[in-house]
Amino acid sequence: MTSDALPRTRLFVDAPLAAGAAVPLSDVQAHHLRGVLRLAPGEGLRLFNPRDGEWLARLDALAKSGGAAAVERQLRRPLPAPDLWLCFAPVKKDAIDAVVEKGTELGAAVLQPVFTRFTDVQRVNLDRLRAHAVGAAEQCERLDVPEVRDPVRLDALLAAWPAGRRLLVCAEAGAARPIAEAAVEARGPAGLLVGPEGGFDAAELDLLRRHEFVRPVGLGPRILRADTAAIAALAVWQMLAGDGRDRPPHRL
Amino acid sequence: MTSDALPRTRLFVDAPLAAGAAVPLSDVQAHHLRGVLRLAPGEGLRLFNPRDGEWLARLDALAKSGGAAAVERQLRRPLPAPDLWLCFAPVKKDAIDAVVEKGTELGAAVLQPVFTRFTDVQRVNLDRLRAHAVGAAEQCERLDVPEVRDPVRLDALLAAWPAGRRLLVCAEAGAARPIAEAAVEARGPAGLLVGPEGGFDAAELDLLRRHEFVRPVGLGPRILRADTAAIAALAVWQMLAGDGRDRPPHRL
Repeated sequence: MTSDALPRTRLFVDAPLAAGAAVPLSDVQAHHLRGVLRLAPGEGLRLFNPRDGEWLARLDALAKSGGAAAVERQLRRPLPAPDLWLCFAPVKKDAIDAVVEKGTELGAAVLQPVFTRFTDVQRVNLDRLRAHAVGAAEQCERLDVPEVRDPVRLDALLAAWPAGRRLLVCAEAGAARPIAEAAVEARGPAGLLVGPEGGFDAAELDLLRRHEFVRPVGLGPRILRADTAAIAALAVWQMLAGDGRDRPPHRL
Repeated sequence: MTSDALPRTRLFVDAPLAAGAAVPLSDVQAHHLRGVLRLAPGEGLRLFNPRDGEWLARLDALAKSGGAAAVERQLRRPLPAPDLWLCFAPVKKDAIDAVVEKGTELGAAVLQPVFTRFTDVQRVNLDRLRAHAVGAAEQCERLDVPEVRDPVRLDALLAAWPAGRRLLVCAEAGAARPIAEAAVEARGPAGLLVGPEGGFDAAELDLLRRHEFVRPVGLGPRILRADTAAIAALAVWQMLAGDGRDRPPHRL
């Protein structure tokens, strides 16, 4: 089935997906389908989650308080996503929204806000970021939604860092390998860390370098905004060490 | 001299830069220095252009209508930037601003808006985009400002495409090589082309494939927004075929 024949509407649902299943839709989903997309019962849509993959379904009922869809058949099997965490210092609203939206499109498994010394932003609206991640996952044809974690301080992130996972730290100052070289070697579980606009302070850089899983990496000769750095690093990692060689399904 | 000791203010000026030169500042620059940055005569700043590199200067005069700076000494020699054109279908305001801002940070030499069949946006505010490019170049420590060209139609772009320059076309559908492979081979003059949200139509894809300089490339299995695709493609090209191995000056 090509993309032309597929329903454009694509929703993430937590419920199990299987042929014949009736899946409840949330109030927010029902409102979006009715009020924004103007769908009516009987119309097709796609439902997905990381356990069951993507399924063709049909709208069954649509009321003010929720709705339901009838699951018909599987379109895509579940497929594990690359195991990449994107850790980033929170930035102002538009920029953090861009990091979450584009981080989702570029396939981060985990989005981890990290407070550092020069981080300007003191509060993170997790509900808004989580809603953005769901919306971006629905649009970009992922089978999962990245986990937007509660913010942590840099020292706590490093203290709890799992064994066997490399952390590529985007560093504007000091010695660093080009990210393209480091990404090729970092196959396997990995994380990227992007600091705030002001960079990391000297004590943070020292702390980072004391951990054997840390690899300082460079993104070229220009000073990138924090959101640009996060998107660029993620793109390079996916293309070299992640799933960047794969092609979009439904488009071949 | 490390970045701590350098004036943070950095302005692009078209005038020749040499020791002892007096450089006129525009009304817009004077307004920004006075009203936004609160600078006064005597304070330091950096001036740059691609012919003369980056110079330390001192504010000489600052009036309502313009000002002047006295050039002291060279901080960086001119350095040719990678010869990469970013061609992109115009998208809505925030997204096209992001393409210009991040395209500048990631070192595109030329930003070329291209009208295609599924391009939603009919008008491009070139003055706004050119101002964004200057602002981003000043922030990101480039020595030049990318040339934001007048929009052209896709057929005109291809008809006038220069000999010896490859064009990597980001393609969601059909056969395409992973961009990381194509970028490594495309050293030398290159262009990237990113279509609108709706992609290229079948006739456009045919037209593209008839040109020997065209290389369809893939950006992985997810469907990216147009601005995400432009930023991701540019980042990957720079890291593999451009200047991504270099480090920021003034930060070592």
